[in-house]
Amino acid sequence: MTRISPRTGQAFKIKKGQFLKVTDPEGQQVSDMLAYNAEDTREYISSGRSIDFAGRLLLTTGDPLYSNRSNVMLTIVHDEVGRHDFTLTPCSEATFRILYGHTEPHHGCQGNFEKALAPFGIEPDDIPIAFNVFMNVDVDGKTGKIRVDPPMSKAGQSTIFRAEMDMIMALTACSAGESNNFTYKPIDFEILDSLPENLEQRAGVHA
Amino acid sequence: MTRISPRTGQAFKIKKGQFLKVTDPEGQQVSDMLAYNAEDTREYISSGRSIDFAGRLLLTTGDPLYSNRSNVMLTIVHDEVGRHDFTLTPCSEATFRILYGHTEPHHGCQGNFEKALAPFGIEPDDIPIAFNVFMNVDVDGKTGKIRVDPPMSKAGQSTIFRAEMDMIMALTACSAGESNNFTYKPIDFEILDSLPENLEQRAGVHA
Repeated sequence: MTRISPRTGQAFKIKKGQFLKVTDPEGQQVSDMLAYNAEDTREYISSGRSIDFAGRLLLTTGDPLYSNRSNVMLTIVHDEVGRHDFTLTPCSEATFRILYGHTEPHHGCQGNFEKALAPFGIEPDDIPIAFNVFMNVDVDGKTGKIRVDPPMSKAGQSTIFRAEMDMIMALTACSAGESNNFTYKPIDFEILDSLPENLEQRAGVHA
Repeated sequence: MTRISPRTGQAFKIKKGQFLKVTDPEGQQVSDMLAYNAEDTREYISSGRSIDFAGRLLLTTGDPLYSNRSNVMLTIVHDEVGRHDFTLTPCSEATFRILYGHTEPHHGCQGNFEKALAPFGIEPDDIPIAFNVFMNVDVDGKTGKIRVDPPMSKAGQSTIFRAEMDMIMALTACSAGESNNFTYKPIDFEILDSLPENLEQRAGVHA
């Protein structure tokens, strides 16, 4: 198990068939997630393809996450929270400046991704819309208005993804107060070679 | 005035301060739109930034469209339709195959963008979520379910964008039956050095 400290990020490799377990150890904490094809990092996770093919903005157990080339990168196989966002870009210096009026803005998840992904040759412009694990964005269907609510994740709850290709991935412990009920908390993650037996039985069933 | 034939696309240059007028000549026809910084095409239009900063999925008159680097690329200055989409990737061979079950899928807006943008050195992987002019996507706020409805655009209605930097842009006459009430129609566009006087007076006011 690896802990991501508050307002930081980490990148790592994962093999096809392995599982990524993302846990919110304290509750109400978002983790932005990115994925790139390990063989060719020009292939990356795509919110637009995934939402289009699912016919839903909200993805959970059983849903595939597609790449920009329309290949399945990840499948959500177990989801104790069931509420994530796939519409917003990682928070950044500009987010804090433009949206929240901060005069000395933090570098945000964008900055943490840039730092974590640089050793893999992935540049700032290669960072797309992330899959924002545990992020709770309310959409008003009539007006289109969005509102960032506190995550529904309770302490110790997890979401597990199966890797469908060899990938370079990155996760953050999100840096935006508004997304995390105004406290900055850690995120835990684990790479598993197989699903724990008790989860295998439950896979496919919403928690 | 330039006409884009049904199920095709075109790319062109536009200067900062010029206006792009996109017209639906027959009604109920979508036009996917892309924009790249002419000086550095690694800077491109970003749905995630634009939606985040607006706090709305639905953008119209007065709304800026941001780049992945959080710079304003375009501003919507006049909008006779007021309903566009900024969540879905351009339709593609994979869209027609995965989503609609076509056995001999059309290359879609993705293919048309690839062909039109290649002479500018912009590659297939550089094509992000487009601003889908006139596309009418209904979102159920509770379930997240999306439904593609016929465009609200009537014959002859336009949306006008002001260019906020020198750009390479591309437009399509969208190829997906589902997005265009099942007929394939043309799209007209025009690059203007100034807004017509009658529109200047109305700019900022929803049609």
